[in-house]
Amino acid sequence: MTSSSIPSASIAASSSLASLSLPEKLRQGKQAFYAMSALPTAQKNQALETFARLLKEHRDRLLEANQRDLQENATGLAPSLYQRLKLDETKIQTLIQGLQDVVALPDPVGAILRRTQLDEGLVLEKQRVPLGLVAIIFESRPDVLPQILSLILKSGNTVIFKGGSEAAHSNRAFMQVVSSLEEACPFLPKGWAQLLETRADVQELLNYPEFVDLVIPRGSNALVQQIMATTRIPVLGHADGICHVYVDASAPVEMALSVVLDSKTQYPSACNALETLLVHTSLGPVFLPVLAEKALELGITLKADALSRKFLPAAEAATELDWKTEYGDLILAVKQVDSLAEAISHINTYGSHHTDAIVSLTPEHQQRFQTEVDSANVYVNASTRFADGFRYGFGAEIGISTSKTHARGPVGLEGLMSYKYRLVGQGHVVSDYSGATPKAQFQHKNLSVE
Amino acid sequence: MTSSSIPSASIAASSSLASLSLPEKLRQGKQAFYAMSALPTAQKNQALETFARLLKEHRDRLLEANQRDLQENATGLAPSLYQRLKLDETKIQTLIQGLQDVVALPDPVGAILRRTQLDEGLVLEKQRVPLGLVAIIFESRPDVLPQILSLILKSGNTVIFKGGSEAAHSNRAFMQVVSSLEEACPFLPKGWAQLLETRADVQELLNYPEFVDLVIPRGSNALVQQIMATTRIPVLGHADGICHVYVDASAPVEMALSVVLDSKTQYPSACNALETLLVHTSLGPVFLPVLAEKALELGITLKADALSRKFLPAAEAATELDWKTEYGDLILAVKQVDSLAEAISHINTYGSHHTDAIVSLTPEHQQRFQTEVDSANVYVNASTRFADGFRYGFGAEIGISTSKTHARGPVGLEGLMSYKYRLVGQGHVVSDYSGATPKAQFQHKNLSVE
Repeated sequence: MTSSSIPSASIAASSSLASLSLPEKLRQGKQAFYAMSALPTAQKNQALETFARLLKEHRDRLLEANQRDLQENATGLAPSLYQRLKLDETKIQTLIQGLQDVVALPDPVGAILRRTQLDEGLVLEKQRVPLGLVAIIFESRPDVLPQILSLILKSGNTVIFKGGSEAAHSNRAFMQVVSSLEEACPFLPKGWAQLLETRADVQELLNYPEFVDLVIPRGSNALVQQIMATTRIPVLGHADGICHVYVDASAPVEMALSVVLDSKTQYPSACNALETLLVHTSLGPVFLPVLAEKALELGITLKADALSRKFLPAAEAATELDWKTEYGDLILAVKQVDSLAEAISHINTYGSHHTDAIVSLTPEHQQRFQTEVDSANVYVNASTRFADGFRYGFGAEIGISTSKTHARGPVGLEGLMSYKYRLVGQGHVVSDYSGATPKAQFQHKNLSVE
Repeated sequence: MTSSSIPSASIAASSSLASLSLPEKLRQGKQAFYAMSALPTAQKNQALETFARLLKEHRDRLLEANQRDLQENATGLAPSLYQRLKLDETKIQTLIQGLQDVVALPDPVGAILRRTQLDEGLVLEKQRVPLGLVAIIFESRPDVLPQILSLILKSGNTVIFKGGSEAAHSNRAFMQVVSSLEEACPFLPKGWAQLLETRADVQELLNYPEFVDLVIPRGSNALVQQIMATTRIPVLGHADGICHVYVDASAPVEMALSVVLDSKTQYPSACNALETLLVHTSLGPVFLPVLAEKALELGITLKADALSRKFLPAAEAATELDWKTEYGDLILAVKQVDSLAEAISHINTYGSHHTDAIVSLTPEHQQRFQTEVDSANVYVNASTRFADGFRYGFGAEIGISTSKTHARGPVGLEGLMSYKYRLVGQGHVVSDYSGATPKAQFQHKNLSVE
């Protein structure tokens, strides 16, 4: 492996790593994982508390660096991205509180999930272990870096970040805090947290499944889809967030309106925001005129099927494309359906299996909706915006997954864990349990995991 | 979607599906999943018991069909593949017993894994649900089909098989049993179990992540790697099985020999068979001569590093390539190491993270080996051949996974499950919990899951 002489655009908190080639950095990150995964809880919590203290101490430098990012991107960025790029005292205070929350979470590493006596003196344990080296690709929001770092640390994993160029100064300032953390906590292994800065590095990184155990892209659909299509490394995330609210025949109009408006307007660019509203035809004539009024008041553009437009005079005509579109904006597609079955079928066909809600007072319909809608989050009489790790009580969130394998829905520490099987015998061999007249028989006796 | 007029080479148990195009078959399989996932336990067990009875009744026809496969492949197949292709009374009896075992397993569908009160009247549940439509690609062994079918049925999933052409008659005969099963159990949804027969179908299938939720290839490394490289559908499996035994300084020679020989010879072509033996240098002069004698007796070819060849006169010289090779045969690579750390580092570098064992009487070394070796199965004083779903007490096995995300190690019913989050409120909205002075606070109170 060559120690590349190409000028490196990457920042390693351990400055000695900065000059390494990308494969060497990845190898170092994977090597550091073996040490990280064995760190005792007390040391991990000590590092989290030190990190909180250092964020407080470096506050002014962080805000200064962020100011430079804001100035350099004052004209180029969309207003919503600019807001996400901005750090302030409150956000840093939230970060510090978040670190304290992670200290309080139980250590997920090492728990015995199951223990089975296969035979006398032959005991199998299923033990929770960390995943390995995790690559996080994110855009804009620089506070993602310390947030995710706290989960990586607590879960005994290691991380390599690629931040957006618009937040380059802020991300570097956070990595300087990480350098100070490493000085204060020398038990943290070299290379446990690294930062890449070029897109080319990300493309190259995707070719190293032997070093990188998981990729978490947090960004545009295009970014996520491109990564999913070009790597053999498992990817945790979601490309689309096409979420639905179905207003059932029995829905109280006030409750339905409140859930629909919160789902659509509380943060329209979020992945768990409402995109398509389905309304039972028996309620349409009552509910839709009320919605039309509120939409006008709140500046929501409506796109509706022919049947609904009778009650939504300002609505544009919706096409099939609208059922497949994540607007991420104050635009709402509206469709009337004749039955619960039609609503469920529409959601399973056009949705992105992220978050879908029913507003209904009919217990049988609530139950059927939650069972048959094939999504990570299925709600009754609640806003789709609740789909979030903090709101679920996970302490922090790595991302939201619409994959069904591994972690699904909002992902906290558990999504960063795997398990291994540990078997302890006394020289046991399989041939004793094989053949026409085996010498021994399996017991498969469940033992307590306490 | 066109109902293709190309002559179809596929068999659907529901004969009405045979003429459909591949995408239509996949759509049907996915559609059937929604019905399968809601089947009550009693009906699923009834179907399993009926299937067992029908296997018994169709025994002669199954053996006849298998005879045709054996005759047509009498010359073309390697002896080990020919053995795997062969069905006999004992294998069918084992299948029937296996079905009874699966009846006895608890239903994995619907269990509440966690329940949290987010606030008054707002309760979140994490519920176990099936995955969806699973594609199984297998070679030779036709008994894989009914075995996996039983797990698919119990777990509320649906399946599309692609069997090897060498077992075409046997696989079709099993699918005829499935047709009889569908007649006897009309609650099974149309398309829940289908069989494809051409490689082209598999290639096309890999392009439909919207229908297929998981691919399980059970076959050669080349097959698995090619599938992993060409699809965005999650793949569960393992490409290589490069397993190690490390004989520590404190290992009793008799126990070490027994574990090494069982790991290597009990079934040399299995993925959990031993490929590379590591021996502590202090024990080499004692252990290796004994091994040399046994290897000669059992016909094991040895390939060893220079240091070990002093004690293994018949051994060929090993190169780095040997540390990376899965022989799948009576060939064993041997290397001496100076320390436990060197053994662990060798295994993490060259191994395939499948199954690795230490033979040692030193508790600290046992513990360190199991913690630091980054493999799905890590053993103390036991043969690597124990890595198997039946031996672990899972009732049946879908395959063995070396992936760290989702299922790892031997995979039973659990690997066919995902989960969803169900939230029930009373019109709760996120805006009440947001802003500078929120109206409400989250409680995040853990509730009993009973």
